[in-house]
Amino acid sequence: MKLSLDANEDIPVFRQVAQALRKKILTGELQPGQRMPAETALASENGIHRSSVREAIRSLEQQGLLYREEGKRKLFVSTPSTATLSRKLVTPMIMEGITFEEIWETIRALDPVVAEAAAHRRNTANLQALEENLERTRAALGDTDALVRLDIEFHELIALAANNRVIQALRLPISDLFYPSFQAVMISLNAGERLLTAHEKILQAIKWGEADEAREWMIRHLNDFHKGYELASLDIRQPAALQASEA
Amino acid sequence: MKLSLDANEDIPVFRQVAQALRKKILTGELQPGQRMPAETALASENGIHRSSVREAIRSLEQQGLLYREEGKRKLFVSTPSTATLSRKLVTPMIMEGITFEEIWETIRALDPVVAEAAAHRRNTANLQALEENLERTRAALGDTDALVRLDIEFHELIALAANNRVIQALRLPISDLFYPSFQAVMISLNAGERLLTAHEKILQAIKWGEADEAREWMIRHLNDFHKGYELASLDIRQPAALQASEA
Repeated sequence: MKLSLDANEDIPVFRQVAQALRKKILTGELQPGQRMPAETALASENGIHRSSVREAIRSLEQQGLLYREEGKRKLFVSTPSTATLSRKLVTPMIMEGITFEEIWETIRALDPVVAEAAAHRRNTANLQALEENLERTRAALGDTDALVRLDIEFHELIALAANNRVIQALRLPISDLFYPSFQAVMISLNAGERLLTAHEKILQAIKWGEADEAREWMIRHLNDFHKGYELASLDIRQPAALQASEA
Repeated sequence: MKLSLDANEDIPVFRQVAQALRKKILTGELQPGQRMPAETALASENGIHRSSVREAIRSLEQQGLLYREEGKRKLFVSTPSTATLSRKLVTPMIMEGITFEEIWETIRALDPVVAEAAAHRRNTANLQALEENLERTRAALGDTDALVRLDIEFHELIALAANNRVIQALRLPISDLFYPSFQAVMISLNAGERLLTAHEKILQAIKWGEADEAREWMIRHLNDFHKGYELASLDIRQPAALQASEA
């Protein structure tokens, strides 16, 4: 396989090789699942050292663009998963001491727009999944753990209905980090009925295509959570660290 | 180093080891920069196979929690960078054919809340950096490339002033993906004056601590971009792919 290399001496050869291969993958010339040409072939066809090819391949492996079965030599082109990559953000966020307030503010930014978009784009399957979630929420009002799980699912289902893959991916690490703080609020307050009402109003607005109403109820619902945090005498400026690392 | 392993037979030993080490890093018992104990020591002290330790270490390396200098054996604890990890999302997003509209909608969700937060939390250094950015924007009204770069910087400076590390990290891949579409709009429209006015209004509101005003001007500014896309007869439902892969 012939690569178009820059002959730019400022850029190390292995980086030029990595860049050229990456472009072939991004433009679809190399397809996911396809076997990669051998190191020696790539080196001789392009008149470069085998070590440059090896280093380029290592870099693409780290980016998740090449995949090798455990203990084997054969390399395949692969698509790194947005979801897997995004979830990896949880670890450094914990290590940096991200606070509950930073997480809450991010959801406060995303979810009202998500609710608005869901009112425009939802389909029958989305609405059915949301109805079923509400059904289970009604049945779980006494069970804090179940309520927390169902609430997180409700918000994820709305993100699905909004049909925006960027927001869906970015919400994943936030959702994971939000979980423990949310549980703390739900345990100390008896907030089930209030949560259920908000969910019902949001779903109704999404169903009827009332985007403004869906957004406004989502904002009210998220502000309720913030208030709940204060009422439960929890400090929203605490790092999300310990609880999340135990999750 | 003694690890508290589960003795749960359903979870492979290497995964238990990885989990235990990860916890020590997340809780700060193992600090970034610290040398990792040797494989053999970890294996014998915990009565487990060396291969389990090796596989656990490989998994932590992939998570960016352990670092090894090129070609050397010594392993050190490291903090994976939120920014580096987040930027890696650009590649799978291009491969999935993310559209400009999905990217725009994500910024439309984040930046109004960011502007609001900046009006509450900005400090003198933030304001000075923003003033300087405006100064350079006024001087660059004829230069499309410079305007695009300065606009992206303006939004990043506001995210900095908002002091929310989660949003700062999540904005990075979006900013990278947004660049080419933004450039297309700026080239086909003469939108410099309009952009400058919006930036002036946003900065003034942030300076005076008027959060509502900052949010509303940010929304107007972003809606302008969306309209600009239509006026320039560009299709906002196109994948961001090709342009971004060439960037």
